[in-house]
Amino acid sequence: MIKVSIIYPSVAGARFDFEYYLTKHMPRSIKLLSAHRGFRGVTVERGIGGTEPGSAPKYTAACFYTFDTIDSFIAAFMPHAAELQGDMPRYTSISPDIQFNEVLIAEPQS
Amino acid sequence: MIKVSIIYPSVAGARFDFEYYLTKHMPRSIKLLSAHRGFRGVTVERGIGGTEPGSAPKYTAACFYTFDTIDSFIAAFMPHAAELQGDMPRYTSISPDIQFNEVLIAEPQS
Repeated sequence: MIKVSIIYPSVAGARFDFEYYLTKHMPRSIKLLSAHRGFRGVTVERGIGGTEPGSAPKYTAACFYTFDTIDSFIAAFMPHAAELQGDMPRYTSISPDIQFNEVLIAEPQS
Repeated sequence: MIKVSIIYPSVAGARFDFEYYLTKHMPRSIKLLSAHRGFRGVTVERGIGGTEPGSAPKYTAACFYTFDTIDSFIAAFMPHAAELQGDMPRYTSISPDIQFNEVLIAEPQS
């Protein structure tokens, strides 16, 4: 099982429209990608803060897609890459860090 | 629902012993924290690479604990903080980025 992480690092003065992201971008992204073979799950989160009281989070928002394999994610994403990437400027000025990960432990199993 | 992210950024020349992390540290951490009220789940992953072929991942490893609330995580973690933090030098020289996050979307629901 693999996880694609799309992390929006905290950048001073950056723009991130959570309303658009949560009501438009992510529902569309999930609708398109979850229909594909190999989709296992998705989570979206908002950074609240660091461990020191009052400290800022390192990232503002993050999205994690879990798929059976990298190939199944790529097959799901590529037909919609232009639409989804083209939508990003509508909710943020932040360039996300995107990487592939191998899931080593998952409890409860999904 | 909240998620605590413990992310080990990729650092040139850093040490990360996945065998110790996966067979000793994380099983002990999960045993201790999952016994507490409010525990919802945990995932552990290893960074494979970025989206450009052959590019390095931004982070080497990451652990995500999901709990009902920040307070329930803190209540679960604090009694074991000294043991778990004291164990970290046994598997890595990397200082992780730790932050609290609000989970906004989770599919399938867990």
